[in-house]
Amino acid sequence: EASAKVIDGKKVAKEIRDEIATEISKMKDAIGVVPGLAVILVGDRKDSATYVRNKKKACESVGINSYEVRLGEDSTEQEVIKHISCFNNDPSVHGILVQLPLPSHMNEQNVVDAVCIEKDVDGFNPLNSGRLAMRGIEPLFVPCTPKGCIELLRRYGVEIKGKRAVVLGRSNIVGRPAAALLDGEDATVTVVHSRTQNPEEITREADILIAAVGRPNMVRGSWIKPGAVVIDVGINAVEDAKNPRGYRLVGDVCYEEASKIASAITPVPGGVGPMTIAMLLSNTLVSAKRAHHFIHSSSKLDA
Amino acid sequence: EASAKVIDGKKVAKEIRDEIATEISKMKDAIGVVPGLAVILVGDRKDSATYVRNKKKACESVGINSYEVRLGEDSTEQEVIKHISCFNNDPSVHGILVQLPLPSHMNEQNVVDAVCIEKDVDGFNPLNSGRLAMRGIEPLFVPCTPKGCIELLRRYGVEIKGKRAVVLGRSNIVGRPAAALLDGEDATVTVVHSRTQNPEEITREADILIAAVGRPNMVRGSWIKPGAVVIDVGINAVEDAKNPRGYRLVGDVCYEEASKIASAITPVPGGVGPMTIAMLLSNTLVSAKRAHHFIHSSSKLDA
Ligand SMILES: NC(=O)C1=CN([C@@H]2O[C@H](COP(=O)(O)OP(=O)(O)OC[C@H]3O[C@@H](n4cnc5c(N)ncnc54)[C@H](OP(=O)(O)O)[C@@H]3O)[C@@H](O)[C@H]2O)C=CC1
Ligand SMILES: NC(=O)C1=CN([C@@H]2O[C@H](COP(=O)(O)OP(=O)(O)OC[C@H]3O[C@@H](n4cnc5c(N)ncnc54)[C@H](OP(=O)(O)O)[C@@H]3O)[C@@H](O)[C@H]2O)C=CC1
Repeated sequence: EASAKVIDGKKVAKEIRDEIATEISKMKDAIGVVPGLAVILVGDRKDSATYVRNKKKACESVGINSYEVRLGEDSTEQEVIKHISCFNNDPSVHGILVQLPLPSHMNEQNVVDAVCIEKDVDGFNPLNSGRLAMRGIEPLFVPCTPKGCIELLRRYGVEIKGKRAVVLGRSNIVGRPAAALLDGEDATVTVVHSRTQNPEEITREADILIAAVGRPNMVRGSWIKPGAVVIDVGINAVEDAKNPRGYRLVGDVCYEEASKIASAITPVPGGVGPMTIAMLLSNTLVSAKRAHHFIHSSSKLDA
Repeated sequence: EASAKVIDGKKVAKEIRDEIATEISKMKDAIGVVPGLAVILVGDRKDSATYVRNKKKACESVGINSYEVRLGEDSTEQEVIKHISCFNNDPSVHGILVQLPLPSHMNEQNVVDAVCIEKDVDGFNPLNSGRLAMRGIEPLFVPCTPKGCIELLRRYGVEIKGKRAVVLGRSNIVGRPAAALLDGEDATVTVVHSRTQNPEEITREADILIAAVGRPNMVRGSWIKPGAVVIDVGINAVEDAKNPRGYRLVGDVCYEEASKIASAITPVPGGVGPMTIAMLLSNTLVSAKRAHHFIHSSSKLDA
């Protein structure tokens, strides 16, 4: 009796990767340039290593050159920044990504700020965040996860303008920029966070709900306005004895309940996750095109 | 039968100016430094000239040196930027203010961006806006008008944390940063704008309402939740034959109606207006203290 349409991030991400691959081969043919993405991985967190591997694979699949630097857990902030500087000056690199989190002895903001804004494909530089937060000024790059959320809404024909949107969570990498993007599309946006009282009363007013809190199944069916569109950014591991790994991944939204109330919803996994990587590829392509003044495009992904 | 407490911006601004004057004389005694504010006025708009005159007077009243450059309507963007560069390099200048709006043949953002962020006492540089929009990173300066709104709430003991706040308007100089500041104080914030449907339904949920739309008397009594605190940023001239000038100033909120519903409200004039100038003085003092590593302070105005 689940009635919500499934917003298939995996499928959309595949379409986008195909579009990107086409663009890249056109650019290569026209001006001989291949986009390049450099990834810096510090320490030996398994999840980070997996993310980096997936990003490299995705690059290959669309024809982006990928470069990787791995540094030990005990390397210094200066060493990381030195590598960033090299990539900043390397014309074959159009995007630089520092896999977060960094070891706790480093100041993450210092490191992220070292990426020049022209190659800040994560969109985490305060200058890019600042431009995103301001009306009438475009950032060079929009952070990948929130950009992916908006792209899903667009490709599923969800009208944003004039709608009420609620964003659960206000992190600098997801909630905050998602709210700025929704406002830029003329939704009326409310940001809910851990100090919000009665969050369910507020989410129930949302035509569009984006959840990015990192709390498994926090958003219950009763939190959702009938017919709302729900984008679930959360990726949470919960114990699951039946699963060979001993855990499974769930979102911030209780899918079973929500899918009976919402008109459309993203699954976890297979929703926002694949879109994040697709947007990273898109940002890298945008960067290469900008660096080489290559403007041929019919893609909806730019700007 | 009006029951709302009047939030007296004029009185609070006077208190703040007195605090600033005391701090400035302490700094002068201790290290011989006097804060300096440079104002650049381009063209001959009467209202702009009035604002600049008021700012100069306010500087004098607290012991800040003020410098002024007036350029003709037909001067070039380059000329304006040249003067900004001079002030950027002048150690006796701690704040630089470009009076807006500029003549239409200039790119306002280019000019504003020319002010180095260490002297951006208006807080309009995208790097300052970006830092304000991000959690966990402090801007060097908070824009004066929204800072004044928050300071009024603070000095009147209005609790912000956990409250629902609605900001009407989303300009880069008022609405947008006001929303960021309220969120920073842990309110749950909704931003309403010209594309919002049924704004009155949303404003009626607000414990704290900040109106900055530039529409005379738009917010009626019925838009306000009983007991809410209302901060009216609007300054609108409306025709008034009874007034010797032929007009009078009103806010974005219909004061007669609102003062019967709200628990506290700012008047126009005499509310946010005087606070804006007081915050400019405060930002200039903060800048001078930072430049000279002068940390003696018991003021609540810093950061
Ligand atoms: N699909 C993808 O590609 C990506 C998925 N994610 C996932 O998205 C989720 C969020 O990530 P991220 O933004 O980095 O997380 P953060 O931990 O940085 O931020 C979480 C936010 O949620 C808010 N929050 C926490 N608990 C509650 C609560 N009970 N009620 C309301 N708000 C609450 C916090 O509020 P406060 O500010 O008050 O502390 C904070 O703003 C995670 O599950 C993460 O794994 C993240 C990035 C990419
Ligand atoms: N007291 C002081 O010191 C100061 C006072 N002011 C006053 O504050 C007011 C706002 O100034 P400013 O922010 O610069 O103005 P702007 O014109 O730059 O912005 C106005 C904002 O209000 C929104 N808006 C306009 N009409 C409506 C409507 N009918 N319903 C909902 N929202 C609407 C606009 O929405 P959209 O984005 O969709 O167009 C826009 O975001 C003015 O009266 C100004 O004089 C300003 C600065 C300092």
